[in-house]
Amino acid sequence: MVQVPDKPLVPDNSLITASPEDGRALAIMLSRHSIHAMQRELEVLTNGRAQYSHDPYGLIAASHVIAVEFATIAAANNYWRVEPVA
Amino acid sequence: MVQVPDKPLVPDNSLITASPEDGRALAIMLSRHSIHAMQRELEVLTNGRAQYSHDPYGLIAASHVIAVEFATIAAANNYWRVEPVA
Amino acid sequence: MVQVPDKPLVPDNSLITASPEDGRALAIMLSRHSIHAMQRELEVLTNGRAQYSHDPYGLIAASHVIAVEFATIAAANNYWRVEPVA
Amino acid sequence: MVQVPDKPLVPDNSLITASPEDGRALAIMLSRHSIHAMQRELEVLTNGRAQYSHDPYGLIAASHVIAVEFATIAAANNYWRVEPVA
Amino acid sequence: MVQVPDKPLVPDNSLITASPEDGRALAIMLSRHSIHAMQRELEVLTNGRAQYSHDPYGLIAASHVIAVEFATIAAANNYWRVEPVA
Amino acid sequence: MVQVPDKPLVPDNSLITASPEDGRALAIMLSRHSIHAMQRELEVLTNGRAQYSHDPYGLIAASHVIAVEFATIAAANNYWRVEPVA
Repeated sequence: MVQVPDKPLVPDNSLITASPEDGRALAIMLSRHSIHAMQRELEVLTNGRAQYSHDPYGLIAASHVIAVEFATIAAANNYWRVEPVA
Repeated sequence: MVQVPDKPLVPDNSLITASPEDGRALAIMLSRHSIHAMQRELEVLTNGRAQYSHDPYGLIAASHVIAVEFATIAAANNYWRVEPVA
Repeated sequence: MVQVPDKPLVPDNSLITASPEDGRALAIMLSRHSIHAMQRELEVLTNGRAQYSHDPYGLIAASHVIAVEFATIAAANNYWRVEPVA
Repeated sequence: MVQVPDKPLVPDNSLITASPEDGRALAIMLSRHSIHAMQRELEVLTNGRAQYSHDPYGLIAASHVIAVEFATIAAANNYWRVEPVA
Repeated sequence: MVQVPDKPLVPDNSLITASPEDGRALAIMLSRHSIHAMQRELEVLTNGRAQYSHDPYGLIAASHVIAVEFATIAAANNYWRVEPVA
Repeated sequence: MVQVPDKPLVPDNSLITASPEDGRALAIMLSRHSIHAMQRELEVLTNGRAQYSHDPYGLIAASHVIAVEFATIAAANNYWRVEPVA
């Protein structure tokens, strides 16, 4: 069966990104790579994605994980503040 | 099928907002944009929204995600404190 | 259909409260206002509330959201410490 | 119907406790008081408690909320450290 | 019916442990003691444990609570850092 | 029945890792070791893994736990920052 290729858990081995937008994209990637570490079969992943992405509860559950990953990435980047706030 | 237009994951590419109210609105937007990144079909989104927004458990699950996103945004803005507390 | 009136997401546009008790009340309000931002129909809200408030799992799920909102509010208020601890 | 008496959301209106043990007891009380703020009927609460406390998934869900409340209380008390660690 | 003996919520009334390993063991104990505070009947606990420990979703839910407890304990111990990092 | 061998909850008894990639791998290990502390029978674990890893909701739930563990590990490592950000 076709498997997702081997790849790192953390792209570029860093939590530091240039901007919140890039940090958000990294949060999505981190959560996807976790799932690929548990399930490598492409067909299972594709079927699973079709299932949860058409179910509002699946989408909410997935967005919850992204929010938790993003919290870590945002802290790592000191929230991309240009100057200290307050 | 109609798709939601391409858009950034983080509006204005910043977590800094003028007030808690704006930060809360951003938390709602971040969680919506996560979902749009996973599901772009407008019809699926509209149907899903009709489903979870009429189910108290769906509303609670969605409000949980907003709370997690808001925690990050509030920290980024140093809680919009005018002067240091304590 | 009757709708909940328009109102801010964050009452008084501030996370700062006079006491933990007020902070806790704000946590409850924030999570309610999130839900009202997703569902404005009073009848749907009233029915949903009757449902989850008679179900221990619904009450636990809702109390979880309150706990997450409160964590943010407590941090914003530096935990209402009168003097630094330790 | 019998209702739970009116009471504050935060006992003694403070997150500061003498010890981790007291902080843990406060975490349990905070989560209970949240639930009482949503459901005041004693019979509903008693029935709900009989239900979730005999269900491992209910107990796990409730213990999750306690863990989240405790995180806030522990931070408020600077983890009851006698002297700074490290 | 046989009941679990009375015991504190926080063993040794402290979050400070000698090592991450001990901190992890404490996280497991904290979550167990929460559950014992809600359900003291040994038979109910034994049956519940047999149920969730044979169900991957039960094990995942329980491990989630351990992760949240551990986050608090790790922060309390300043992550057992020997010297400040970075 | 075959059991997973005794092993520590925290490999190398440390949260400090050389890189985000290693920290992510540790997060996965921590959550697995939690589960092994609750269920040692290899057959139950293998069956459970086959079940949740073919179910998108199981994969999302497991990835959520990894995200929470990683948040702690990332904080412990000061986010592997080479130099202070901002």
